Amino acid sequence: MAEGHDLCGHLTAAGHELRQRVYFEDTDFSGLVYHARYLHFFERGRSDYLRLLGVHHNELAADGLAFAVKTMALDFKRPARIDDILTIVTEPGEIGGARIRLRQAIARGETILVTAAVEVALVNAGGKPQRLPLAVRAALEAQSQPRGDGRSVSI
Amino acid sequence: MAEGHDLCGHLTAAGHELRQRVYFEDTDFSGLVYHARYLHFFERGRSDYLRLLGVHHNELAADGLAFAVKTMALDFKRPARIDDILTIVTEPGEIGGARIRLRQAIARGETILVTAAVEVALVNAGGKPQRLPLAVRAALEAQSQPRGDGRSVSI
Amino acid sequence: MAEGHDLCGHLTAAGHELRQRVYFEDTDFSGLVYHARYLHFFERGRSDYLRLLGVHHNELAADGLAFAVKTMALDFKRPARIDDILTIVTEPGEIGGARIRLRQAIARGETILVTAAVEVALVNAGGKPQRLPLAVRAALEAQSQPRGDGRSVSI
Amino acid sequence: MAEGHDLCGHLTAAGHELRQRVYFEDTDFSGLVYHARYLHFFERGRSDYLRLLGVHHNELAADGLAFAVKTMALDFKRPARIDDILTIVTEPGEIGGARIRLRQAIARGETILVTAAVEVALVNAGGKPQRLPLAVRAALEAQSQPRGDGRSVSI
Repeated sequence: MAEGHDLCGHLTAAGHELRQRVYFEDTDFSGLVYHARYLHFFERGRSDYLRLLGVHHNELAADGLAFAVKTMALDFKRPARIDDILTIVTEPGEIGGARIRLRQAIARGETILVTAAVEVALVNAGGKPQRLPLAVRAALEAQSQPRGDGRSVSI
Repeated sequence: MAEGHDLCGHLTAAGHELRQRVYFEDTDFSGLVYHARYLHFFERGRSDYLRLLGVHHNELAADGLAFAVKTMALDFKRPARIDDILTIVTEPGEIGGARIRLRQAIARGETILVTAAVEVALVNAGGKPQRLPLAVRAALEAQSQPRGDGRSVSI
Repeated sequence: MAEGHDLCGHLTAAGHELRQRVYFEDTDFSGLVYHARYLHFFERGRSDYLRLLGVHHNELAADGLAFAVKTMALDFKRPARIDDILTIVTEPGEIGGARIRLRQAIARGETILVTAAVEVALVNAGGKPQRLPLAVRAALEAQSQPRGDGRSVSI
Repeated sequence: MAEGHDLCGHLTAAGHELRQRVYFEDTDFSGLVYHARYLHFFERGRSDYLRLLGVHHNELAADGLAFAVKTMALDFKRPARIDDILTIVTEPGEIGGARIRLRQAIARGETILVTAAVEVALVNAGGKPQRLPLAVRAALEAQSQPRGDGRSVSI
């Protein structure tokens, strides 16, 4: 379904891009986007990236599994504002047995607003790290050696 | 720009429709969407409806104006879940001098999940109600007498 | 533990009161509290009211049960602002077999800012309504006939 | 006012401590606290710390000033859950002309759940960094050389 697919953004040579709007809910009384909201945008990007690689939260949950963020280094360079259209760029880095490193950026047009170095782990209901499904690992590794023709996040 | 336009949903004969994804951020530990999050989805629908009618929050803000929700009657019929694609339907009702009544619904496919009767007002920085710009009023009134060929919200 | 207890607010003759601060996260770019955030404050009030009546979300969840909001009628009378200290007042109304009606208000000092008529239901994991535990029902009913010496919500 | 004061947490030899409850709104469908919500808890801690040092967001805003988070390094060690009572610990680090470094931790009892190294800046409406008011700078510097009798965040 075209419209549904479009909601997921699209895979690029280097990873994934998703466009999202800034709404009232994302701003605070300073007139700018509330800093914690950028983490929502980053999470939407990661979720849709994994979705397009065939990983679905509800299927993982049926097996008692979920991705959890373990560490995050954030650089808030410039603010986003109400009505902005943001592009969330996600690129895989090192893929360990149970952890995935990702580089992410939020841009408005060509201007990078926020960058994040993120480490996520697949965990079971008890919080224990689990090995990544082989298919996911293979899909991510294929993209972690980009062929140089995609937009790249430099952080 | 096609992709940006698509982010706004589209006008229908009776009002406006917007598709949105349910992400992690929208759920709570019950496994379902947190009830207050539906108000975010409704607000996204209203914002994009007004946007397509030519009303932009940042332009209003430059004049010290903003839309404020005055009353809301919500009926939470069925829950939404992670990964769901939701359609937010917005239809204008009675248009007063300073207030707009809207009927809204959130659906998953053909199933209505939540409905809302909403009253919004245009207010200045001091919270005083302001008259609607004539162009907005005319655009809303044109749609508040739908020609019967649009999807309609019954609440 | 005194400090922990204080976090829960306190029971009154007519129901429950909880004080909460407005933080950055609660505001939007209009400079006021984002309308959906009042639902968070109301939910904190209901949760702490039930907590002081001996009902704990994590214990309910262990039995596959959770409270779900079914309907809500909201009246946003006046806005709250950053740094405000709000009092959330919760009073039980009609107690049905599976549903509880509550009247709630958010006040700043003596000024009522937002009122809500809320209907909540106890549901199981499949969303089916469940009968209220007798002890909860009895505790709520004892308070739904207040002795007239408590602050009362008129909505 | 005692109750209002208690809402702000309290100053310690090394900085500030604030107790907060985990509510429904803070959790996601994994059953744990949503990762971005910890940033809300951290921000509440910083706001109340500055409040007790005499800095108020609404007064800054009247001068067109606001604190903005510039960088953040987060370590999500263990998850928080619904109904948990969390302690948010905030300690000043290096105080620059326009930037403040802070170390923060969220603990449940004696267990550290999340740590953050945060850099905030005072900015004007145009986003330009502003020098810290001298009184704030002095108050923070007095606490950035703790006398060793306070709870300390090791991150």
